[in-house]
Amino acid sequence: MCSRPESREPLRRVAVIGGTHGNEMSGVYLARYWLQAPGELQRPSFSAVPVLANPAATAACRCYVDLSRTFTSAFLTARAHPDNPYEVTRARELNQLLGPKVGQAFDFVLDLHNTTASMGTCLFAESAHNVFAMHLCRHLQLQSPELPCRVFLYQLPGEESYSVNSKNGLGLELGPQPQGVLWADLLIRMRALVAAALDFIQLFNQGTAFPAFEMAYRKVSSVDFPHMEARDLAGTVHPQLQDRDFEPLRPGAPIFQMFSGKDVLYEGEATVYPVFINEAAYYEKGIAFFQTETLTFSVPALPVLAPAPAPAP
Amino acid sequence: MCSRPESREPLRRVAVIGGTHGNEMSGVYLARYWLQAPGELQRPSFSAVPVLANPAATAACRCYVDLSRTFTSAFLTARAHPDNPYEVTRARELNQLLGPKVGQAFDFVLDLHNTTASMGTCLFAESAHNVFAMHLCRHLQLQSPELPCRVFLYQLPGEESYSVNSKNGLGLELGPQPQGVLWADLLIRMRALVAAALDFIQLFNQGTAFPAFEMAYRKVSSVDFPHMEARDLAGTVHPQLQDRDFEPLRPGAPIFQMFSGKDVLYEGEATVYPVFINEAAYYEKGIAFFQTETLTFSVPALPVLAPAPAPAP
Repeated sequence: MCSRPESREPLRRVAVIGGTHGNEMSGVYLARYWLQAPGELQRPSFSAVPVLANPAATAACRCYVDLSRTFTSAFLTARAHPDNPYEVTRARELNQLLGPKVGQAFDFVLDLHNTTASMGTCLFAESAHNVFAMHLCRHLQLQSPELPCRVFLYQLPGEESYSVNSKNGLGLELGPQPQGVLWADLLIRMRALVAAALDFIQLFNQGTAFPAFEMAYRKVSSVDFPHMEARDLAGTVHPQLQDRDFEPLRPGAPIFQMFSGKDVLYEGEATVYPVFINEAAYYEKGIAFFQTETLTFSVPALPVLAPAPAPAP
Repeated sequence: MCSRPESREPLRRVAVIGGTHGNEMSGVYLARYWLQAPGELQRPSFSAVPVLANPAATAACRCYVDLSRTFTSAFLTARAHPDNPYEVTRARELNQLLGPKVGQAFDFVLDLHNTTASMGTCLFAESAHNVFAMHLCRHLQLQSPELPCRVFLYQLPGEESYSVNSKNGLGLELGPQPQGVLWADLLIRMRALVAAALDFIQLFNQGTAFPAFEMAYRKVSSVDFPHMEARDLAGTVHPQLQDRDFEPLRPGAPIFQMFSGKDVLYEGEATVYPVFINEAAYYEKGIAFFQTETLTFSVPALPVLAPAPAPAP
C-alpha cells in the first residue's frame, strides 16, 4: 500500500533510475544524459534526480550482472564485506541513496528497463494495493491511448519486495529492443513516459483528483524451454507464439518448435496470456515465458490533497 | 583465391561452425543440435563436421568474448602460455582442428553468425577472388530469390585474414536477432542456407558447372556514434536510418538523432549503402554502422571437375 497518498502529502523527492540492468540501453543512456542535463526532469513542486544504477555492468555491457534481484533485507542489512559481489555493495549504496526500507530519502522511484520480448509498453507495479502507482499507470495509459500500455503486478502473495522500485515506485519495461542496442523510437517513448509520470506527480502535488482504471495482468507461473541436456535447448519458442506477448494462448496452441521439427502444444486447461516471450535475460533462469491471467479490479479514487498547513509565522 | 576449385579437386571435409560469438544463438544451437544429430549435415561425396567454436563464451552468454578476431598469424604461431586469453588458446585449438594456415584439415568452412542489425541474409566472403565462394553465394541467392541475400566482401586490400573462415569458407550473417535470443524463423532460415550450401558442394563434387553472378558489397569505412565523453553517447541512430541496412544513404539524409533533439546529417558527397546499422557488438568498437559501396563484377564460370584418375590397380 502506498503510504504517501494515504497520508495525503505531496511527493518531494523522486528518483529516475536507468541501468539497473547494464545492457538495457534506453534507461542507461537517458540516465547518462539527464546526469549531464538534469533540467528536463524538474517540475515546480518536487525534485527529481537521475541515477545510473549499475555503472560497472553498464560499462561492461554484461548480460548477467543483475542488480534488480539483490534488494532483499538480508543483503541490505548484513555487514559490508570486501568480498561482497559488486551488485550487493551497489545495492547497499542505492539503498542509502534512494531511501532504505526504514527511511524516506525518496518518495517515489521510476525504474527504466528494456526487454527483448515484444512487450510494447509495460508498467511494473508491486501490487494493486499501491493506489498511487495504479493511478499513475492509468494516467500513462491515457497519454497515448492508441499504444497498448499494460500493467504487470509482480508481487506474489507473501513474496518479499526485491526490486529497486519496491518501496513506492513504478518500473517501465519497453520492448522489443536487443540487449546492448539503443533504438531511437524506444528512447523517445521512454522519455515521453517519464515526462508524463513526472507531470502526474506534479498534478497530484497541485491537488488534482484522479478516477479509477480497469485492468491489470498478474504473473501466474513461468514456463521453461524444452531441453536436451542441462543447458542445451531441444527447441525454441514457436513462430506462432513469438511476439504475441499479452495475446491469449489457448489450450492446444503450439508453444515450442523442436529442432527435430515436432511442435509442442500448450496443455493447460485455461486460456493464459504469455509475457516476456523469449527474453534474453531469462534463458539462464530457465524461463521461455511467463503465463499470466487477466485480473480486473477497481482502484479507489485518488482524492485531492489536503491543503498544506500554513507555515509557522 | 580459392585453391580447391582451381585444382579442380572435389571437397572432402567441410566444417560447419556455430558459436564463434557466444551470444549469436542460431549457430550456437544448430551446432549443439548437429553434435547430437550429425546425420543432417551428411552428403554422399564429402564429410561435414559441426563445431561449437567458443563453448566458454556460449555458456556465459557474453557480449564481448570474441573469437573471430584472434585468427592472426602472430597469435596462432606464438608459443602457448598459461596466461593466454581463453580465445587465443581456443583459436589455436580450432586452427589445429579446422586446418592451420599451413595445413589442409578442412577444405571449406561455414561460419554461422547473427547480428542485431536488419541485415536479412548476408553472406561474408573474404574477397571476390575466391571464385568457389562467389559461386556458392550465387547458388544461395538463387535458392530463395524472394528473400534478399547480399554478399559482403570483408577483406580490404593488404589486410591479413583474421576470421575463422579465412582459409576457404563463407560466413552467414542473419539478422535482426537480439544477442542471447533464439528466434525460430532465423533458425529455420540458417538451417536451410547450410543445407543449400552443402548441396552446392555436393553438386560441385558431382561435376556440375555454374554460371556467373553480378554484384557484391564492399566495406568502405566505419562511422562512430556522436559522443559526449569517452564512453557516453550524445545521440543514437536516427529513426530514418534504423533498419535500412543495404538501402542507399544520400548526402543530407539524417543519420543520428541527438538526445538534445538535433539531427545529424550525412555529409558525404557520394551515396553509400550502410550495413551493420546499430549492431550491439560494435558499440564498444565505436561503430554505429559501416558505409559500403556497391561493386559489380563478373566471376568466371566454375568448370566441371576433371574426372578423377582411375584408382591404381
